[in-house]
Amino acid sequence: MRQKLRDLGFSIGTLPTGKRNQITDVSGVRVGHVTIREERDERTVVRTGVTAVLPHGGNWFLEKVPAACFVLNGFGKTAGLVQVEELGTIESPIMLTNTFSVGAVWQGTLEYMLAMTPEIGDTTGSANIVVGECNDSYLNAARALAVTKAHAKQAIAEARVDMEEGAVGAGTGMMCFGWKGGVGSSSRIAGGMYTVGALVVSNFGRREELRFVPYVPPAFDEREVPPGSIMMIIATDAPLDARQLKRLARRATVGLGRTGSCVHHGSGDIVIAFSNAYTIPHFSDSALQSVPPLIRDDAPLMNELFQAAIEATEEAIWNSLTMAETTTGRNGRIGEAIPYALLERMKRAW
Amino acid sequence: MRQKLRDLGFSIGTLPTGKRNQITDVSGVRVGHVTIREERDERTVVRTGVTAVLPHGGNWFLEKVPAACFVLNGFGKTAGLVQVEELGTIESPIMLTNTFSVGAVWQGTLEYMLAMTPEIGDTTGSANIVVGECNDSYLNAARALAVTKAHAKQAIAEARVDMEEGAVGAGTGMMCFGWKGGVGSSSRIAGGMYTVGALVVSNFGRREELRFVPYVPPAFDEREVPPGSIMMIIATDAPLDARQLKRLARRATVGLGRTGSCVHHGSGDIVIAFSNAYTIPHFSDSALQSVPPLIRDDAPLMNELFQAAIEATEEAIWNSLTMAETTTGRNGRIGEAIPYALLERMKRAW
Amino acid sequence: MRQKLRDLGFSIGTLPTGKRNQITDVSGVRVGHVTIREERDERTVVRTGVTAVLPHGGNWFLEKVPAACFVLNGFGKTAGLVQVEELGTIESPIMLTNTFSVGAVWQGTLEYMLAMTPEIGDTTGSANIVVGECNDSYLNAARALAVTKAHAKQAIAEARVDMEEGAVGAGTGMMCFGWKGGVGSSSRIAGGMYTVGALVVSNFGRREELRFVPYVPPAFDEREVPPGSIMMIIATDAPLDARQLKRLARRATVGLGRTGSCVHHGSGDIVIAFSNAYTIPHFSDSALQSVPPLIRDDAPLMNELFQAAIEATEEAIWNSLTMAETTTGRNGRIGEAIPYALLERMKRAW
Amino acid sequence: MRQKLRDLGFSIGTLPTGKRNQITDVSGVRVGHVTIREERDERTVVRTGVTAVLPHGGNWFLEKVPAACFVLNGFGKTAGLVQVEELGTIESPIMLTNTFSVGAVWQGTLEYMLAMTPEIGDTTGSANIVVGECNDSYLNAARALAVTKAHAKQAIAEARVDMEEGAVGAGTGMMCFGWKGGVGSSSRIAGGMYTVGALVVSNFGRREELRFVPYVPPAFDEREVPPGSIMMIIATDAPLDARQLKRLARRATVGLGRTGSCVHHGSGDIVIAFSNAYTIPHFSDSALQSVPPLIRDDAPLMNELFQAAIEATEEAIWNSLTMAETTTGRNGRIGEAIPYALLERMKRAW
Repeated sequence: MRQKLRDLGFSIGTLPTGKRNQITDVSGVRVGHVTIREERDERTVVRTGVTAVLPHGGNWFLEKVPAACFVLNGFGKTAGLVQVEELGTIESPIMLTNTFSVGAVWQGTLEYMLAMTPEIGDTTGSANIVVGECNDSYLNAARALAVTKAHAKQAIAEARVDMEEGAVGAGTGMMCFGWKGGVGSSSRIAGGMYTVGALVVSNFGRREELRFVPYVPPAFDEREVPPGSIMMIIATDAPLDARQLKRLARRATVGLGRTGSCVHHGSGDIVIAFSNAYTIPHFSDSALQSVPPLIRDDAPLMNELFQAAIEATEEAIWNSLTMAETTTGRNGRIGEAIPYALLERMKRAW
Repeated sequence: MRQKLRDLGFSIGTLPTGKRNQITDVSGVRVGHVTIREERDERTVVRTGVTAVLPHGGNWFLEKVPAACFVLNGFGKTAGLVQVEELGTIESPIMLTNTFSVGAVWQGTLEYMLAMTPEIGDTTGSANIVVGECNDSYLNAARALAVTKAHAKQAIAEARVDMEEGAVGAGTGMMCFGWKGGVGSSSRIAGGMYTVGALVVSNFGRREELRFVPYVPPAFDEREVPPGSIMMIIATDAPLDARQLKRLARRATVGLGRTGSCVHHGSGDIVIAFSNAYTIPHFSDSALQSVPPLIRDDAPLMNELFQAAIEATEEAIWNSLTMAETTTGRNGRIGEAIPYALLERMKRAW
Repeated sequence: MRQKLRDLGFSIGTLPTGKRNQITDVSGVRVGHVTIREERDERTVVRTGVTAVLPHGGNWFLEKVPAACFVLNGFGKTAGLVQVEELGTIESPIMLTNTFSVGAVWQGTLEYMLAMTPEIGDTTGSANIVVGECNDSYLNAARALAVTKAHAKQAIAEARVDMEEGAVGAGTGMMCFGWKGGVGSSSRIAGGMYTVGALVVSNFGRREELRFVPYVPPAFDEREVPPGSIMMIIATDAPLDARQLKRLARRATVGLGRTGSCVHHGSGDIVIAFSNAYTIPHFSDSALQSVPPLIRDDAPLMNELFQAAIEATEEAIWNSLTMAETTTGRNGRIGEAIPYALLERMKRAW
Repeated sequence: MRQKLRDLGFSIGTLPTGKRNQITDVSGVRVGHVTIREERDERTVVRTGVTAVLPHGGNWFLEKVPAACFVLNGFGKTAGLVQVEELGTIESPIMLTNTFSVGAVWQGTLEYMLAMTPEIGDTTGSANIVVGECNDSYLNAARALAVTKAHAKQAIAEARVDMEEGAVGAGTGMMCFGWKGGVGSSSRIAGGMYTVGALVVSNFGRREELRFVPYVPPAFDEREVPPGSIMMIIATDAPLDARQLKRLARRATVGLGRTGSCVHHGSGDIVIAFSNAYTIPHFSDSALQSVPPLIRDDAPLMNELFQAAIEATEEAIWNSLTMAETTTGRNGRIGEAIPYALLERMKRAW
């Protein structure tokens, strides 16, 4: 039974966590996973999946959330960011999957939304679908294109508050720092009142780069692991607008760097941040749109929100490692779960 | 029989055109269309398609072209731009379709490339697919999701030098300035030696905005036309790197503005520019990569390349109008071809 | 006596202008010029100056305005944009001058603000000074560095509502389309209630590029005119936030393109947009900041604001030409005022 | 006598340093400081200065270096970045000073360059001056505006290979993590052949944020320290173009994050990176410009260059702390040098 970092006696930073220490501590956020593990034939071992992050419990198209993205390294295929950048809103679930399934998941998510909202594409515009990815082709038979539109719909439909972490959903086949990676999550409370949650799909780095952990030579050739990536999703209930959420998104990369990432060429390192403190309705009779009072950029609370994003991201990455179970994949490859004994040095580091 | 602007006796700018006055004047570039016109039932009138722009005649993944993008208005769903921005290369055909088919076209293009290059997803990384779109749901039953992966593959496979323009391919259902729009293309020769070609899918604007053309009140309510977009593809054989191609891409928007576009909120106005003067090989034994001598930024030739991009883009938009035939669509709607008589005033404008 | 375009019987676009057809139609905005014309010796003919655009009538540091910038071509030395981009506010006058005087004007403006607000640099942070420039060294002895800190302070102090246009202030020595350029301004009313004003310093282009105007071969070698630039300032009283102001700023470049600009390599084409519909106080006891209801991005009114920015920018450029008087400069060079007779063809163009 | 981190028995990362472990290990790079310490009267205690980083030993305007910038947090006044972003070159020394002296240093540097190159502003264009800053107004009487144009010229003229670190030049009055900060530098060798050097002016953070160092409550109120900043300059002799240098610049922020920075709101965190492996001549008779073979993005060597930028930046920040001497400033304030005993825990962290 794998555990989260805190259950192993370690912690990151100084801010308190939310109740679950997950992104779903941000009220309204739910996460759904579809995990696909199949041995279709000797060569076709499927280890992949889909993860859906739902910004709130309503209709995301009719009630859009303010959002922003930040690309530290753009070697990635994330779809939907052009419109997020322009309009500062997200109107779909944030979908995560493997590199070769962006189109299928995009299309499945669109179909889900067309069913949910009959006006789209008929009497009103279009829907912008956000899909992020990492490349799980070390363990997963990526060319089998196992992910279908139905998987995307299922991940959305099954989203819930008590989310799983580790080698599940989009994280099923991912590798991180030469160990088994995957989905990790964490959260922080800033200013005693606002929650910042992080969810990552971790799929980057080499063993020697993981900070504070002794190097254990792998039984495999690390050069065979394809250049990885990390998707970082930041959710908050603090009232921020798109410009401020971009600032928050940038801070997530500090948490990434602290784990030891060198942001390798092949690593698409992408952050998507949203707030569900308020929503922007799709339909309106007015030419004006009210927003609630926003956090002032110079408030000490803003710096605490930044710190929360850093700490939650860093801890989410650790959780993706400590929660992931050893996974065998294609070509007899094995993604080993990081042994907890290796983490002992971390305790001494702080 | 519809004609190009020049065949009607008008022209844009002062630079000479290439042989065909199409983007395919850039040697190696080919364009393929799949046009989908179906009446599935009374309510489901399909008017849509796919257009593929091939950067060169080889394997685009193994021989990548330098490329850049510029987003004047990001209300659009174009996929693949994150990686273009980071690495400054394009490694797929540039695919164009309707707003609701980005995923299907993405996935079909990927399958085409996986078949073409067995190493992708097995022993070497991933492929970045570029897919642009406009919203044709005024004429097209967009919710029918008529475009399939097979259409994307077919558009690539059928690409050729003598390309069609008007209400074909991705342009089948598009509306521009309240008239029937679609695919248009034009080219220019800069410095007597380099070709700059433009291909657009035009789907924006209202009748009153079209410059130099008298306003003819439409028989329909223009407010029912969904907010449009324009995809602008710029190809050249001039040796430019990604930074310089971004500069070229920015100039395309000047050509757009000159037609009368006010870059409305709902209009995703996106430019993708590439050069096939040289390619960057995917595989290499060297840590170094040679590039040929590039055009100096301060050479008068660079300004001529800029001018060429402006003129070709503007004329491509006009060609999308003059080449498009009247098209009936869903709900009995009619996209009228612009009457040539309305263009007479243009002659006097210059 | 030079006149504005409208006084010559021409007009741009369809929206009504404000009362003065100047940027100062936006209530609270004032503009000050210092014009420096000196013949220090035979070789040192000074034709330059400073222009200050004041966002409102109060203390700009204590009451910041939401703002954004857009760089179409970054061959320019504008200072202060990094912070505008990050925080979405302007807290100084927007200063305009020649390329070689950015530092002097920056420092003079800072001194003005330090005197106005004793807390800056003592008990509270720092001030971000925005200074834009164009290169007037065709007519002006730029190496004489004639602009001093005192000129910057004077331009601020003398700002007023009834502003001059033409060869004054920062526009004193500028050349545009091979004719004498300089400062031009125009305004539009959008939605019957909001004002959008544009002020430009025009210093770009060659004679053959000016649209709708017959080419008159110059008596000089146009290649001796250094690569130019244009600074475009957009002011509005519509309630927009920084993200929306960036959208507005992008539209100004459409107006630029319509005059005939090809956005040459050497032309720094930069837009700065602000709204004074509300301000953000520097000091606050609260962690929250209220903003008024903002214009919805999808309101028809937003498209009218975009159109207003396009029309006002285009007309401001024309005004910079029609208002500028013939100016002799260094080396016996002459910047000729554009003859009004050349504009007759424009009338026929619409 | 203060020492560098390595002389205290600690080190950062795994790559070897250059000979001096300074940015000047990149051949041709020189650094000059002017340190200004004056007690003009009881209230006016000046603790500030100027630092100049020279990209190579020739005429930087006539031989420009490829360059890029990355802004992690844009709360800063750095001048010159607009043109760096557009053209991908630097043509001046990179000047560093306090927040209130950007204009004076800009103007002094311009005068230096005008004297060096008589063509500028006469027969050829303009010069783009890069000036970065941090706010030293905790210790320094910033409103005294002690820095003059002459100081900028002197810093350039006195640049040399054996550079000083600590409370010198632009670092004279800076505070970092609640201790005395200032100028720090470090270097790394990547791939056994290329050098990456970092120089920082550190002026950010609170005591509790410094990682691995026990918290010592300060004798002063940390809230009185104005929001800080960090300027990070990265130099290399590896052949990279502007796009690649931007990638390198982004990695520097990982090094920053590892020291404990939370990238506070008020902290302008700005990276400027250049290569002097080749130069781009200002004058040329050709329309083409050759560049040498560049490092391939996917070469393992590129990842080592990224790692080098991370390690050198992190160690440069530590060096800015360990080299800075206790400095008394205005209002009787004291910037304490960090006691070396506090660093002992660091040893255990790795």
